[in-house]
Amino acid sequence: MSDAPALDVRSDICWSDATSITVLGRDLCTDIIGELDFGSFAFLLLTERMPSAAEGTLFNAALVSLVEHGITPNAMATRLTHLGAPESLQSAVAAGLLGLGSRFVGTIEGAAQFVTEGAGRLTAAGDDSDAAVRAEAERIVAGFRERREHVPGIGHPIHDPVDPRAERLFEIAESEGFPTLPIRLVRAVAAAGSEASGRALPVNVTGAIGTVVALLDLDWRIARGLGVISRTVGLVGHLREELAQPMATTLWRTTDAAATRHLGIEAWPAR
Amino acid sequence: MSDAPALDVRSDICWSDATSITVLGRDLCTDIIGELDFGSFAFLLLTERMPSAAEGTLFNAALVSLVEHGITPNAMATRLTHLGAPESLQSAVAAGLLGLGSRFVGTIEGAAQFVTEGAGRLTAAGDDSDAAVRAEAERIVAGFRERREHVPGIGHPIHDPVDPRAERLFEIAESEGFPTLPIRLVRAVAAAGSEASGRALPVNVTGAIGTVVALLDLDWRIARGLGVISRTVGLVGHLREELAQPMATTLWRTTDAAATRHLGIEAWPAR
Amino acid sequence: MSDAPALDVRSDICWSDATSITVLGRDLCTDIIGELDFGSFAFLLLTERMPSAAEGTLFNAALVSLVEHGITPNAMATRLTHLGAPESLQSAVAAGLLGLGSRFVGTIEGAAQFVTEGAGRLTAAGDDSDAAVRAEAERIVAGFRERREHVPGIGHPIHDPVDPRAERLFEIAESEGFPTLPIRLVRAVAAAGSEASGRALPVNVTGAIGTVVALLDLDWRIARGLGVISRTVGLVGHLREELAQPMATTLWRTTDAAATRHLGIEAWPAR
Amino acid sequence: MSDAPALDVRSDICWSDATSITVLGRDLCTDIIGELDFGSFAFLLLTERMPSAAEGTLFNAALVSLVEHGITPNAMATRLTHLGAPESLQSAVAAGLLGLGSRFVGTIEGAAQFVTEGAGRLTAAGDDSDAAVRAEAERIVAGFRERREHVPGIGHPIHDPVDPRAERLFEIAESEGFPTLPIRLVRAVAAAGSEASGRALPVNVTGAIGTVVALLDLDWRIARGLGVISRTVGLVGHLREELAQPMATTLWRTTDAAATRHLGIEAWPAR
Repeated sequence: MSDAPALDVRSDICWSDATSITVLGRDLCTDIIGELDFGSFAFLLLTERMPSAAEGTLFNAALVSLVEHGITPNAMATRLTHLGAPESLQSAVAAGLLGLGSRFVGTIEGAAQFVTEGAGRLTAAGDDSDAAVRAEAERIVAGFRERREHVPGIGHPIHDPVDPRAERLFEIAESEGFPTLPIRLVRAVAAAGSEASGRALPVNVTGAIGTVVALLDLDWRIARGLGVISRTVGLVGHLREELAQPMATTLWRTTDAAATRHLGIEAWPAR
Repeated sequence: MSDAPALDVRSDICWSDATSITVLGRDLCTDIIGELDFGSFAFLLLTERMPSAAEGTLFNAALVSLVEHGITPNAMATRLTHLGAPESLQSAVAAGLLGLGSRFVGTIEGAAQFVTEGAGRLTAAGDDSDAAVRAEAERIVAGFRERREHVPGIGHPIHDPVDPRAERLFEIAESEGFPTLPIRLVRAVAAAGSEASGRALPVNVTGAIGTVVALLDLDWRIARGLGVISRTVGLVGHLREELAQPMATTLWRTTDAAATRHLGIEAWPAR
Repeated sequence: MSDAPALDVRSDICWSDATSITVLGRDLCTDIIGELDFGSFAFLLLTERMPSAAEGTLFNAALVSLVEHGITPNAMATRLTHLGAPESLQSAVAAGLLGLGSRFVGTIEGAAQFVTEGAGRLTAAGDDSDAAVRAEAERIVAGFRERREHVPGIGHPIHDPVDPRAERLFEIAESEGFPTLPIRLVRAVAAAGSEASGRALPVNVTGAIGTVVALLDLDWRIARGLGVISRTVGLVGHLREELAQPMATTLWRTTDAAATRHLGIEAWPAR
Repeated sequence: MSDAPALDVRSDICWSDATSITVLGRDLCTDIIGELDFGSFAFLLLTERMPSAAEGTLFNAALVSLVEHGITPNAMATRLTHLGAPESLQSAVAAGLLGLGSRFVGTIEGAAQFVTEGAGRLTAAGDDSDAAVRAEAERIVAGFRERREHVPGIGHPIHDPVDPRAERLFEIAESEGFPTLPIRLVRAVAAAGSEASGRALPVNVTGAIGTVVALLDLDWRIARGLGVISRTVGLVGHLREELAQPMATTLWRTTDAAATRHLGIEAWPAR
């Protein structure tokens, strides 16, 4: 048998020995636990730097804004999964997270990308006039339409005329003194998208979080992670309620009965 | 065809209309976003009440303490999953969460249960003397040993003689004025478990978080959710590093070469 | 920096080089693809040996029997997940699989364990008389009741007086000449469980598959894998129908409206 | 409170009553279990029709061909997940499936789409000459290159000059009398892709399975499902081996030690 091969990998996030844990160069137990709130620690993990007060405020606000939106498909998937595997809370949460793809929540990623790249181009060109912003927004919208894709981060089935979470996040960003260009750009994209589609498509909460990602200089490729972190809290909350006030069994049996009623079968006999 | 059946379910967490979102009776946009840090909002979702300052501090500290422990099996699963499905960050995180079962992290649940129930029995009996606490701890340990199960929340492969995160959490709980009985009990369980097994088994971080669950009066059945929330942040952090400084491909190829080297196959030719 | 450590692991399932793939010592392309049906290849992977004709028949029958049971909680989780992440079929299937825990399907594991171990004890004792089988069944049922657990693999909410899939599997096992002791034992467990609980609890399909696991000498610790394999096929089938005849959006919106109707909110305005 | 809303959904896959289960109009217990092999039943679920003998052979061969490829990132994710949650075999399998995205296995989907649509265009145009096939292949390759995407289903890091599984599947398709146009097209795409990239990119197993999807007239949108079904069997097989001959702990500890060795930490003291 030949010798065991050498494994040559490296990580710089965290290391530990018998008496301490070090995270990105800081002692977890003396410098972080009890010193840093959870949202700010998440910021540190995602950027490798400590947040300023303004950054901590905006980042926490962004995380808070997506935690809950009531009965969503992913909350339903979590509750239905828990029904079959109550011993594995982590599996029920994971099942819910798996729906955070291109249609819901995952749109943070696309929004973060176009805001980051668009604002970068405007800055590089040295022109952030309204006309330049509008032109950039139109280019962005045209790109999505050419690829027959929805513009991520705009439009909402319920909230009208605006998504109040998006407005609140922008208000916080402005009052905390962040640059306004990314916000102006995403609003211009919503306007251009509305005009192109003939429907009112306001910036929604995922578009606003995508903008926050750009404002905080996070890598847009992990932008979706903010939504994943937020919704994890929401899904654990749904499991708390499911334990106290369950809906999964009723949901299952009613759906089964509804789905096959054209066959005249009595799936769930009352006995 | 018979009529569509009525769906009779109920949820009280969150509801929305065109202009607002309400979470547990509070207006999300005016009362929560920008007003409450992310950790405290998580507390609200898991308890239906606002945290006091002390509760907010302890809960945030508990969430922070489990975010990171370097290269763990779940961080590896997340990185390996991302290699195959980089378009689905949520799937890579979910893959990592699925390992938070009975051996790692999920032990929060068992610890929360025995601390909650044991402290409850001591309180009901009106005797929290050291002798009573020790006797309760011995009963708890005997129960696990009878079922041939490990006592959850004690012992650690690296940290010795104590898990510094556990000590820090207990210190915060004490300085914030929480009752000491749950902490005395979990320490007594660790002592009894060490004696019964003949190995030093200090309270570890999951045992301490289980104790925090009892101190904050959370339902122990969702205790594992705290670990799930924490680790979600850590796993997104590992994806940030994986994008910048990848290890998954090397890990895969070295493992494949190592696993089949006894066959004399050159799986990954250098060409 | 110290040297990269050696990775010392081993696997004997499969290896490949530029021109061939070898699975458990057999050439995949010349000896397996086109020569072995999919179910029989699964048998090989789970046992390291080729099935006899009788084993191939019984194993295929067991896999077939659990593929479909209409609208189940896991089929719903799969459809709801697909709604949010249609680009990731694998995630929708994985979400459905996560519900195959202790309440549904995962019961194969417990049934396989008690049949394997119980039949083993009877054989070791050299007494497979009806009285001995009944006594063993009563011991098994008493064990579950002592631990306040349901006996896995017996009882069904719809099928009455028997689960027709279980009966069909037993019929095949008998006509293919398998030993009858495991089947006699699981029937005795169902009888003892029914008597102890005062309700009719026939052997259900997961109990029968657990019995097949024992008949085929599979390791009971992977018994749940048979259900996972079967349901994967069923869940892909549900996605096929969901694409052609979707239900997820209706399911979501009706559930949201139902869950919050006590608040007098019109969640999904008709506009 | 307003009345519970009506749930109006429909499914036609499977329904059951007290004494029978019906799948796509066939009695599961009398017509399918014991009558149809598992692969052929999967075909029925994915197409709503019974396979001919040739279809059954080709479909089973396609499923068989992707079950195993040794130590892959998804097999590693499954084994690492099992280490933390050994009580939830389904979660370990699900973790492995989550990596079947755009880079591995998920490429079946893209290949199935271009073969289905390309062959459709050639047939509609009434010209399946070599020149027409080559021109269509060049259009397909140009489209992917324009979008800066890899052509799915061609190229392999190990197999050279061809992927032997692909060749075997094409051989079976031809000997079973299937049309040759889809195979000619996918080979022409591989040739065009090789020329455009300057590297040898043979049709790989996922490209061949995508071609089988077209040959069998399956919906390409569920093509990835074939890979998901196959790999589920493979992953259960890896768990069987992991239980008997574990590698996950060694893999974890070696990776942790390797990843942080530049820090001079002794993560896993020998005590």
